Amino acid sequence: MCDCVYIYPRQWAVASSVEGGEGGGQRKQGQRKQSSRAKVSVSMMGPLPLRRRRVGVLFLALVLLGGGGADAGTTSSYRRKLEATVEMPLDADVFRVPPGYNAPQQVHITLGDQEGTAMIVSWVTANEPGSSTVAYGEDLARMERRADGAHTRYDYFNYTSGFIHHCTLRNLKHATKYYYAMGFGHTVRTFWFTTPPKPGPDVPFKFGLIGDLGQTFDSNITLSHYESNGGDAVLYVGDLSYADNHPLHDNNRWDTWARFVERSVAYQPWVWTAGNHELDFAPELGETTPFKPFAHRYPTPYRAAGSTEPFWYSVKVASAHVVVLASYSAYGKYTPQWAWLQAELARVDRKTTPWLVVLTHSPWYNSNNYHYMEGETMRVQFERWLVDAKVDLVLAGHVHSYERSHRVSNVAYDIVNGKSTPVRNADAPVYVTIGDGGNIEGIADNFTRPQPGYSAFREASFGHATLDIKNRTHAYYSWHRNHDGAKVVADGVWFTNRYWMPTDDDTN
Amino acid sequence: MCDCVYIYPRQWAVASSVEGGEGGGQRKQGQRKQSSRAKVSVSMMGPLPLRRRRVGVLFLALVLLGGGGADAGTTSSYRRKLEATVEMPLDADVFRVPPGYNAPQQVHITLGDQEGTAMIVSWVTANEPGSSTVAYGEDLARMERRADGAHTRYDYFNYTSGFIHHCTLRNLKHATKYYYAMGFGHTVRTFWFTTPPKPGPDVPFKFGLIGDLGQTFDSNITLSHYESNGGDAVLYVGDLSYADNHPLHDNNRWDTWARFVERSVAYQPWVWTAGNHELDFAPELGETTPFKPFAHRYPTPYRAAGSTEPFWYSVKVASAHVVVLASYSAYGKYTPQWAWLQAELARVDRKTTPWLVVLTHSPWYNSNNYHYMEGETMRVQFERWLVDAKVDLVLAGHVHSYERSHRVSNVAYDIVNGKSTPVRNADAPVYVTIGDGGNIEGIADNFTRPQPGYSAFREASFGHATLDIKNRTHAYYSWHRNHDGAKVVADGVWFTNRYWMPTDDDTN
Repeated sequence: MCDCVYIYPRQWAVASSVEGGEGGGQRKQGQRKQSSRAKVSVSMMGPLPLRRRRVGVLFLALVLLGGGGADAGTTSSYRRKLEATVEMPLDADVFRVPPGYNAPQQVHITLGDQEGTAMIVSWVTANEPGSSTVAYGEDLARMERRADGAHTRYDYFNYTSGFIHHCTLRNLKHATKYYYAMGFGHTVRTFWFTTPPKPGPDVPFKFGLIGDLGQTFDSNITLSHYESNGGDAVLYVGDLSYADNHPLHDNNRWDTWARFVERSVAYQPWVWTAGNHELDFAPELGETTPFKPFAHRYPTPYRAAGSTEPFWYSVKVASAHVVVLASYSAYGKYTPQWAWLQAELARVDRKTTPWLVVLTHSPWYNSNNYHYMEGETMRVQFERWLVDAKVDLVLAGHVHSYERSHRVSNVAYDIVNGKSTPVRNADAPVYVTIGDGGNIEGIADNFTRPQPGYSAFREASFGHATLDIKNRTHAYYSWHRNHDGAKVVADGVWFTNRYWMPTDDDTN
Repeated sequence: MCDCVYIYPRQWAVASSVEGGEGGGQRKQGQRKQSSRAKVSVSMMGPLPLRRRRVGVLFLALVLLGGGGADAGTTSSYRRKLEATVEMPLDADVFRVPPGYNAPQQVHITLGDQEGTAMIVSWVTANEPGSSTVAYGEDLARMERRADGAHTRYDYFNYTSGFIHHCTLRNLKHATKYYYAMGFGHTVRTFWFTTPPKPGPDVPFKFGLIGDLGQTFDSNITLSHYESNGGDAVLYVGDLSYADNHPLHDNNRWDTWARFVERSVAYQPWVWTAGNHELDFAPELGETTPFKPFAHRYPTPYRAAGSTEPFWYSVKVASAHVVVLASYSAYGKYTPQWAWLQAELARVDRKTTPWLVVLTHSPWYNSNNYHYMEGETMRVQFERWLVDAKVDLVLAGHVHSYERSHRVSNVAYDIVNGKSTPVRNADAPVYVTIGDGGNIEGIADNFTRPQPGYSAFREASFGHATLDIKNRTHAYYSWHRNHDGAKVVADGVWFTNRYWMPTDDDTN
């Protein structure tokens, strides 16, 4: 292995990517190889030159494993550990109920409006309703402000939830650290968060990108690695607890999951997407209301986004406009989600929020046999809109491995013209499947072969990603496989903004 | 014009169909031309020979209008009348409120179970709730049985509905005429219906096929022609009243529509499909519950079909198993509709109910520029299932013209193989678009050109169709354009059953 740096033509960059090999992947100036296991790794950059030279690192260790010469991208040869994914036992320390009578547990926050000046605080009390009030303020010793929430609960077959509290803190200052506490009357617990900066075109922000986390030992590694990488908020692409994988959809696993992730989501907002494991649709149990546990537990600021259901909505965070779509709600023409998305895309102001990111659970571009083509029906409905809107990035989960696409579109089809193959398109988003959080269902290690032209990089490992927006033109996206430790980037790309640098060819 | 009968090879039958011409269309034995305006017309047949000779009528009057030689099917040259479609005024006689204090109005019935032994009777009282009881029996003079229903009502913006009664009559005998009455305490009205025959493989039954009816003068002609043609029940493919085309979705137009169609639907069951005009989704009015008026007014026997929502369900009628799908509800993988349809198709017993018919509002095969490709997203999700299940016929509305497909499928596509063109497939359904009821939005007279290979016959006229099931193997399907009068068939085909005659090439 060496760190030799070559300047090479683009088509060579593509041709150097071979199935099963460690090669390929284009580097931007300033990137350096850090580990022989890392696909692409970087050191953090200084100020970004707007006109970049095309510089790439060509690894000598191109390992040709079989005749995959037709592959268009990189299928990583990295092999996940062989152990099964095992759910953490109910008495694991991460699931521990906080001490004290009726102590608030499962504390989590999410954005409460479109501008980053409100935060929804949610928690559960187990013994009695208690108080739904949150005290908060910039001074830990005072926390002089009060907000009153409300509680709800639900039954699911033989399970009755605790008292689920939701309380929205409003009129917050941007980029400000707030302490908050709840549990008055009994056991009080205190947390803190920092509000996002005021939306603006060059406001930097670092998102964590996590999906399909579950509550296995691998899930715990994923979460720890994300914490170590230090994002400011999480874009979560669905499938939270996997409670529905347990007999009778054991909703106690909704509780354990929320206690498990509290260590992150009580301190920074996670933006929620509904996955299929949130459906909890079980007519055999008499449970026929889709999303019943999820909707009771995880509120979203959908009304502030002009939406009429909590499963599709948007938030603005720093320089990003984040649109959340619902794979398991109706999206046919004329439906509420369809009508909302059409209006929403017209509302996006790329001059204020240059980065347009879409979350959905079921991926539209996936070359894993696991869930292959499941996203087609929503792609057929919405892809053209997203290409026309010059969306930067579409994040999905669902498939329990990692994949990143080139900028491609498949919107020329008109039934009779035969034009139904994805093609490179600088207007199109990059599609990332990040359903590799590490849940109980295990890894999806059965990629289609050869690797199709739309797929730039794929690897069957657990992990998480980060999207580090630097300014209106550049964001560094990186995927971190679990087994290299958090500080090693297994796939990294500089994204250039589709609105401000529309013709820049950032993923080829 | 002549009645000359030729025996001709199949490829010639196809080649003889030319855009704008009167030619083409294959005839079965026993069919005779009756009118120079009819595309294909028939005299009713005697007993059906199971082995039929291929016999066709080739009209001499092939009129070549322009260079449409690449067309695969027939685009009828028949021109609809030029007058606009005008809604009947509120004081039209068809909308008249029945006399008498609190008289039951808007009486309609639909099937109440899977077997044809229950009927849901619905009506509205305007002044006060009154009684929700229905008296019924085989003897008009006695009507000795009683069933108790319930009433509901709803608000929609500035409108408050009357008292909407629903009452299910159970344990009915098959193929039996029942009289029924409601309005006790005030004005009593009496109607009758005949229950469908007991399901069985060779039980004949004649369905009316109507869609997008609305309440214009043309709607009235369509309904009259259907009544004249004498079906036993209607398969209605969605878009009922078009109330939402009026300011504030004037729900009084839901009332007028129900009074207009009472003359048919009080006497025979109509099977309802939800169309986009049933959504009444109007966040600008604060009305965000999809299908609010429709769901209050038009119950369906969805629970008897194992469904969890009224918008997708099934009924068995004589020798037909009818599946109703919901274009405007969720149908992605794992959703309730998806899960239900998967189970439902496995429940179909073609030995008892040989004819498998699917209703949905938005067509999957439509070569009109109006709503072109809107059905793609549901087609992508469900087409393979329907082909595997050997569905005989898929009925849709939505497009305000008439079209019938060949037996085609488009299920070979796997993203990278380019196989995305519809191909002839004897396992596949025939797709019929029958959204030509005559509503206020007018005719859709902008067909794509050339006529694509999947399209067998299309014409921009108002009308309705009938499906006359003769036995387990044969059903005569015919489309009746309005302007020829009810007794003339403008497009007629003998369908052979996909289960009992799976290789018979009935639409080429």
